[in-house]
Amino acid sequence: MKTIGIVTSGGDAPGMNAAIRAVVRVANYNGLQVLGFQRGWEGIIMNNFIPLTPRSVSGIIELGGTILHTSRCMECQTSDGIKKSSKNLAANNVDGLVVIGGDGSLKGALALSKVSEARIVGIPATIDNDVFGTDETIGFDTAVNTAREEIDKIRDTAVSHERIFIVEVMGRQRGFLASMVGLTVGAEIILVPEIKYDEEALFGIIMENAARGKRSAIIVAAEGIGDTRKLSADIQKNTGLEARLSIIGYAQRGGSPTARSRFLASVFGNKAVQLLLDGRGNRVVGIQNSKVTDISLEESCGSTKSLDLSILELAKVLAT
Amino acid sequence: MKTIGIVTSGGDAPGMNAAIRAVVRVANYNGLQVLGFQRGWEGIIMNNFIPLTPRSVSGIIELGGTILHTSRCMECQTSDGIKKSSKNLAANNVDGLVVIGGDGSLKGALALSKVSEARIVGIPATIDNDVFGTDETIGFDTAVNTAREEIDKIRDTAVSHERIFIVEVMGRQRGFLASMVGLTVGAEIILVPEIKYDEEALFGIIMENAARGKRSAIIVAAEGIGDTRKLSADIQKNTGLEARLSIIGYAQRGGSPTARSRFLASVFGNKAVQLLLDGRGNRVVGIQNSKVTDISLEESCGSTKSLDLSILELAKVLAT
Amino acid sequence: MKTIGIVTSGGDAPGMNAAIRAVVRVANYNGLQVLGFQRGWEGIIMNNFIPLTPRSVSGIIELGGTILHTSRCMECQTSDGIKKSSKNLAANNVDGLVVIGGDGSLKGALALSKVSEARIVGIPATIDNDVFGTDETIGFDTAVNTAREEIDKIRDTAVSHERIFIVEVMGRQRGFLASMVGLTVGAEIILVPEIKYDEEALFGIIMENAARGKRSAIIVAAEGIGDTRKLSADIQKNTGLEARLSIIGYAQRGGSPTARSRFLASVFGNKAVQLLLDGRGNRVVGIQNSKVTDISLEESCGSTKSLDLSILELAKVLAT
Amino acid sequence: MKTIGIVTSGGDAPGMNAAIRAVVRVANYNGLQVLGFQRGWEGIIMNNFIPLTPRSVSGIIELGGTILHTSRCMECQTSDGIKKSSKNLAANNVDGLVVIGGDGSLKGALALSKVSEARIVGIPATIDNDVFGTDETIGFDTAVNTAREEIDKIRDTAVSHERIFIVEVMGRQRGFLASMVGLTVGAEIILVPEIKYDEEALFGIIMENAARGKRSAIIVAAEGIGDTRKLSADIQKNTGLEARLSIIGYAQRGGSPTARSRFLASVFGNKAVQLLLDGRGNRVVGIQNSKVTDISLEESCGSTKSLDLSILELAKVLAT
Repeated sequence: MKTIGIVTSGGDAPGMNAAIRAVVRVANYNGLQVLGFQRGWEGIIMNNFIPLTPRSVSGIIELGGTILHTSRCMECQTSDGIKKSSKNLAANNVDGLVVIGGDGSLKGALALSKVSEARIVGIPATIDNDVFGTDETIGFDTAVNTAREEIDKIRDTAVSHERIFIVEVMGRQRGFLASMVGLTVGAEIILVPEIKYDEEALFGIIMENAARGKRSAIIVAAEGIGDTRKLSADIQKNTGLEARLSIIGYAQRGGSPTARSRFLASVFGNKAVQLLLDGRGNRVVGIQNSKVTDISLEESCGSTKSLDLSILELAKVLAT
Repeated sequence: MKTIGIVTSGGDAPGMNAAIRAVVRVANYNGLQVLGFQRGWEGIIMNNFIPLTPRSVSGIIELGGTILHTSRCMECQTSDGIKKSSKNLAANNVDGLVVIGGDGSLKGALALSKVSEARIVGIPATIDNDVFGTDETIGFDTAVNTAREEIDKIRDTAVSHERIFIVEVMGRQRGFLASMVGLTVGAEIILVPEIKYDEEALFGIIMENAARGKRSAIIVAAEGIGDTRKLSADIQKNTGLEARLSIIGYAQRGGSPTARSRFLASVFGNKAVQLLLDGRGNRVVGIQNSKVTDISLEESCGSTKSLDLSILELAKVLAT
Repeated sequence: MKTIGIVTSGGDAPGMNAAIRAVVRVANYNGLQVLGFQRGWEGIIMNNFIPLTPRSVSGIIELGGTILHTSRCMECQTSDGIKKSSKNLAANNVDGLVVIGGDGSLKGALALSKVSEARIVGIPATIDNDVFGTDETIGFDTAVNTAREEIDKIRDTAVSHERIFIVEVMGRQRGFLASMVGLTVGAEIILVPEIKYDEEALFGIIMENAARGKRSAIIVAAEGIGDTRKLSADIQKNTGLEARLSIIGYAQRGGSPTARSRFLASVFGNKAVQLLLDGRGNRVVGIQNSKVTDISLEESCGSTKSLDLSILELAKVLAT
Repeated sequence: MKTIGIVTSGGDAPGMNAAIRAVVRVANYNGLQVLGFQRGWEGIIMNNFIPLTPRSVSGIIELGGTILHTSRCMECQTSDGIKKSSKNLAANNVDGLVVIGGDGSLKGALALSKVSEARIVGIPATIDNDVFGTDETIGFDTAVNTAREEIDKIRDTAVSHERIFIVEVMGRQRGFLASMVGLTVGAEIILVPEIKYDEEALFGIIMENAARGKRSAIIVAAEGIGDTRKLSADIQKNTGLEARLSIIGYAQRGGSPTARSRFLASVFGNKAVQLLLDGRGNRVVGIQNSKVTDISLEESCGSTKSLDLSILELAKVLAT
């Protein structure tokens, strides 16, 4: 192992830069050279890279986004794209590749690892937290806190106007973000794609809350539950209470990472390089029960992480 | 002048609580009693109030929203509503009333001042900054900074993905918020209702920017310009560049007020009570060229504040 | 189990209010009444309490400090104080008591549990994270992030002036806070009480860094290492480089809790009430390897939590 | 006017980068070339500079510190240093120089303007706000808000522990920062160098407050008032109340600038270049009564800005 590559791919997540920094510095400390492929998989296919030294990653631990840029790339999924990637890695004598990204990026890493001679290790970084094999992904804690801060502000208006607010958060088809945000902002109701909700029952709960003296309410809804605009209108129509919708948008994906996102980025980056130094590939690193671990890319890509429903149960009790 | 009332009305704005605190404490310092009417004009019509002492307003300087709650009230606009309000003020021996709110609230204050014996003074508090007679309203600076912080985060993703982001901010039919936010986040383009824009020209600017090497762009758009969802789709279709929309929602209306919003709340609250102590009513306080001032409610309600177009010109040059 | 008490004691920590809210609402959900003792142990000794209902804890999840107030109390340690406390709990028919606080508060809880008939359960809340039996205490994550945000700002000046900054963080006699802050701000050097440092070696590292082109440096020092003022002066004298000291003070102990501190407060509060409902006392709740757990007060008070030295090792490599 | 230089000097202030960006882009828009001298005056004396283009200043509007770095330079004050500077400006065909900094930097600018052929314009940037000729300096609003946010957190602990906190803020020998911070955090007492305070009277006020039921207090003290450590000890000794000291340190000088600091940086940068384009030198730009203005360097350096005492009077009433 002499030269390794890094690529950030898919949606960006706060802490990707901290992970790049960790990979570069641990690699350098162990005598490895590092190439940074730019703009996601596209950079590998187009052979577009820059050398990364410890000085190249100065001051980036606190920055959102990714200095390597990223993209969603269609060609990369094709066998032709994968072949080109494999060829370019070989041409640059890249012995190991660290892929930083979410679910889709790890699937790409798996496909490439079947073709390429280079050892490939994934680092899970996505605000959605939907990667199997790790309790938490890089960026999740930051996104939770960004949404929490915004909802703390929205609560001011909800209380002052005695209104219901439906707040849509990200999370794609999963409810990890919504459930943690909902619990920690004290949401009256949390809606996630994993649990179908009944509109009639929902109206009932809202009116019951109002009857018990709760004049305002925050409903945190995952984007994956469907049309929140319609939901908001339906609530207003059926409960007779004023309802407003607020969509917490792309700010959730950016911003300076929290300590926890930086911590995960640091230990994941370190672990990824250690695996490569040990000659191991086809792995994705993670944290499970507070231990830094790794599983195979196949297992991660082939399994579905389950949502902790006890959080939703507790949130319900705490919102009384 | 022995007893004064306070009411917060219309949309809430960060710093309303700081203004309540200032009014209560300056009034108390000058030997006045204070009644806080609850839930906006409705509180006056329904004769719903609480006494406010210096201790009632402890610790509220830093809170968003309004401890008196607020509402938009239809009945209040009617002559019947105004008569009821006037009667209740008299019944409670309220000699002076401080109305904290935006444009609409001041119109209500003007209507009431024509009927009621009580002296009425308005304090402009709205994130829209669209009140004539003051260079800046309470809450404006906070909303600008809230939007700025979110857009600073969105910029991370815009740059990392090399995308165009249209970010819609509040401001009702005016561009005060959008222009100050746009200037201070370094937006490539700012769209305000006061200046009609040409879609073709807009696409041209975006493509020119891209040609000059600016791979990402932030377009700050006031909510008053119309359908930003359509605009976003049009840009993507016509420029061939990826475009995303993010609507900065109700968070702009809440949150702990900035120092400047608290400062204005403090000096406005003080000025309002001083006017009442001087036996003056039918006024709205403000800050003009750094001096705390007051004008008549008629003048404020009857005039339109002009937008400083030089900010937009400067923003254009600074985005090159 | 019909009535339980709550008390917050010792230094305050962000998330104490979220824990109070959780205890009150879970207790209420299970048919228990709740008494809130005020100003720490003093409230039990003086029989000073208020009833707490789900509405009493509305809107407090986001507030720093503790609505029950707290104090450090000398009398409480005496056998006389403990007897008075025990008597008052009995007089109020308090069957269970939840003690929210740090190390010292748990020692008080242990002493009381030996005398009182009431079941006593501790909830670890301290920014120092120095409680045995839990991987993380309520407030720790918030304090880490508060210090991180400040140091991110100090880094601006450090870089612009090409200076060395020694930043002292809290943590009493332990290095939990300093090591996590140091890792996540990318500190060049981290000093903790658990590892004696050699001044000469320290000067050497600083000059070596400077020689390698690192013109500024952040040294994160735990308050427990001794006189940072002297250290700062010594560094300047011995390295010839400009050094400045900044002490991150009491802000670390306050502020709105992060999502993680609120999450721990919620699950700890729930667990504490569940233990009481099961008739169990003399326990302290915690989180270990991501599971909510409990151990005896004796074990917690009698053991010393070890610092994860691998964090310091990793931080060193990452600062190259 | 073909080529202009920029230098940032003295203590850094948030918004310096936004000012650099504004100068560079306005200059470029008007066909001027820009040289950025590095590390303050030292860069001019050592002839150390880089060319700055619109792309060099991309993304810096939101960064604290200064990309040009800064220093306090002894040689620069000497006539020899000034001669070297003048010679280097001439050698590089620098027709105009923009000096961004505080009081001391403007004095340097004045000295240089007497010797150099280049037109010299100052932009006031300092968190101390102690520059004559402008109501507000770049960085002041950011520092006020940074201190405010920290004190809002400290207030949590002050209230929970029912303690007195003395919080020392920056401001050198002036009370601009302390008075605005004090007013906007609702400080019970504000101490500034411009008004001598009597210790006995101070103890009296504190005990009176306590007697009226205010169990905690925040005293905001400017660093210029003297030894706050001693003051804190004296208060505790003489009032019998617990007192703690917290020094808000260098974080006040860094961090992402607020909207207002960015706004001032933008209009000041624009004005400075316009003056140079008009062939005018020996000026310092500013904002007075909301108008962007300029006065001579002599007048600015030779006059003392007065502190608005009405803020302190109002703060006293509002803290009742």
